[in-house]
Amino acid sequence: MRKISAVVSLFALLSATTALAQDAEKPEHPSPNAIVDAAPTSDWVKIAPRDLLVMDLAPDSEGNARRVVIQLMPEPFSQGWIRNIRKLAAAHWWDRTSINRVQDNYVVQWGDAGYDNPESGETEQKALPEGLETVPESEYVVEHESLPDEAFKKTPAGTYDDPDLDAAALDSRTVSDTDPYVDWSSFIEGWPVGTKDTQTSPIHCYGAVGVGRDYSPDTGSGAELYTVIGHAPRHLDRNIAVVGRIIEGIEHLSSLPRGKGQLGFYEDASKRVPITSIRLGDALAEEAPPAFEYLDTAGEVFAKYADARANRRDPFFIKPAGGADICNIPVPVRRVKGE
Amino acid sequence: MRKISAVVSLFALLSATTALAQDAEKPEHPSPNAIVDAAPTSDWVKIAPRDLLVMDLAPDSEGNARRVVIQLMPEPFSQGWIRNIRKLAAAHWWDRTSINRVQDNYVVQWGDAGYDNPESGETEQKALPEGLETVPESEYVVEHESLPDEAFKKTPAGTYDDPDLDAAALDSRTVSDTDPYVDWSSFIEGWPVGTKDTQTSPIHCYGAVGVGRDYSPDTGSGAELYTVIGHAPRHLDRNIAVVGRIIEGIEHLSSLPRGKGQLGFYEDASKRVPITSIRLGDALAEEAPPAFEYLDTAGEVFAKYADARANRRDPFFIKPAGGADICNIPVPVRRVKGE
Repeated sequence: MRKISAVVSLFALLSATTALAQDAEKPEHPSPNAIVDAAPTSDWVKIAPRDLLVMDLAPDSEGNARRVVIQLMPEPFSQGWIRNIRKLAAAHWWDRTSINRVQDNYVVQWGDAGYDNPESGETEQKALPEGLETVPESEYVVEHESLPDEAFKKTPAGTYDDPDLDAAALDSRTVSDTDPYVDWSSFIEGWPVGTKDTQTSPIHCYGAVGVGRDYSPDTGSGAELYTVIGHAPRHLDRNIAVVGRIIEGIEHLSSLPRGKGQLGFYEDASKRVPITSIRLGDALAEEAPPAFEYLDTAGEVFAKYADARANRRDPFFIKPAGGADICNIPVPVRRVKGE
Repeated sequence: MRKISAVVSLFALLSATTALAQDAEKPEHPSPNAIVDAAPTSDWVKIAPRDLLVMDLAPDSEGNARRVVIQLMPEPFSQGWIRNIRKLAAAHWWDRTSINRVQDNYVVQWGDAGYDNPESGETEQKALPEGLETVPESEYVVEHESLPDEAFKKTPAGTYDDPDLDAAALDSRTVSDTDPYVDWSSFIEGWPVGTKDTQTSPIHCYGAVGVGRDYSPDTGSGAELYTVIGHAPRHLDRNIAVVGRIIEGIEHLSSLPRGKGQLGFYEDASKRVPITSIRLGDALAEEAPPAFEYLDTAGEVFAKYADARANRRDPFFIKPAGGADICNIPVPVRRVKGE
């Protein structure tokens, strides 16, 4: 009742994201991954250890370690919250807090779940460290004209080039003008951003890390963080501070059981995953802190990679799309040996 | 060391997707969910039981049942594969197959994992039922002019109305022309579709179910299926057949441990989750098969819902986006009592 079949047929199914041996047969159309793999060292940009936030969760049910590595956003974006996050990490504030919310196709959120005091009947929360800033709403965005022009130069991709764009306004920038959320989207120093009217702001792609908050004008301190584990919730752009992105270990969050309470909160406190510690990369008590690099988004290799993402011609594909939304062009990040 | 805080502050954080009590304070700007909740019965369309595919997985480690309900696509899309899927379900072909692949931010795939025959050294696969069709690549798309005009009428949303669109070509259709993958995207009978040149095809949004295949010109039989568990992989549109979407229980797939093999396949066969059975809704051996309805995408309520998704003005939000990509406007589906 079983017929012989090569194992490759199973593994080739939906091979969309991985470079395959067959790419060698069509060198003129390498896959996006093959383009990245061939990038010279000069196209990779080192991420400073102090821009890493390293979260260790309690081991899983099989005793496996669970480490999540977050890259913090560079200037000039969200810096008030990032200063707070550095203080919270230095104060070891997140140690013995937990993952409290897992909402399918949306976010995983962590921080202090609070303590239900049986005497007072109130929920008490852990005191925050001294000296945290209250960051104004205006810092969700940056005035576009304050950004260096070079940041936008040579950003992807040829396929986005639209002769109808206002050339005077956009200079030599090659950008996407088919983004329903902003006038145009692009990459700055390895990060996806959108520009609308005169303002530029970070984009909520998969793995983006943002600052939980209450109703406006509260903007959150940075003590409550979340990450995106579903389709990019772009309606949050310009409404919440994006402070980073997960560059390793997101599967330890995205594969957690979904919370059954409102908004995906765990109603059963025993389901919350304990956070052992969160530290800045340069404060890890280890000989070799993790080291990472991202592919220079202003470089030629990234432009080719983005073009290949938008026009898949590797052997699996029949019809190239001719475009891609910015969250479908994830910026390549790789782990390297620490120094 | 703990300060008093109301529990609402935790629950209000990132309340983006849920109607809140506070909506009542601003009735002129109800949340998307509040709009859906207020929809009259006449705006809900019943899904026929024979258009449901019900997948039962083995219970989880705590003994909880795991049921996933898929709605199959209506005519004229992907019907050759859907005929095959009905035959496979009727033959109980998927019983004792498994979930074999979980790739983060991409897909979960199921079907026959194959059997490594120690005698022959070959991987053998379960024989398919007689009479399955070989569906041609041309069926990934439908000629747009063959679709009924009414299908596009009143589809969302006011915010998408662009006076520069070719009015003669688009008639009264209100559509998105800010979709980087297609000329314009819209909804047909509850399904997101994109139109490029003369052709219309279904869109790979979160939860879409598609037909795994090998390299072109193979198009897959329908025995290997996958669903999207991450950001919409729109580059698969027009390259693979979308045959349905998950309308209940996707968390049983999206929260599975990620596979550690190439493409997220489970290298360790013991990690594969057994599929107990897959049946069409009208073949379930139960008194009351599950019954579902979707919100009529040609109705006024859906247009208001889509507009509210694109222009969030409920109390949490500060800056409405002014637009939304089609996969960020999930079609509301609700469970109703069986008859």
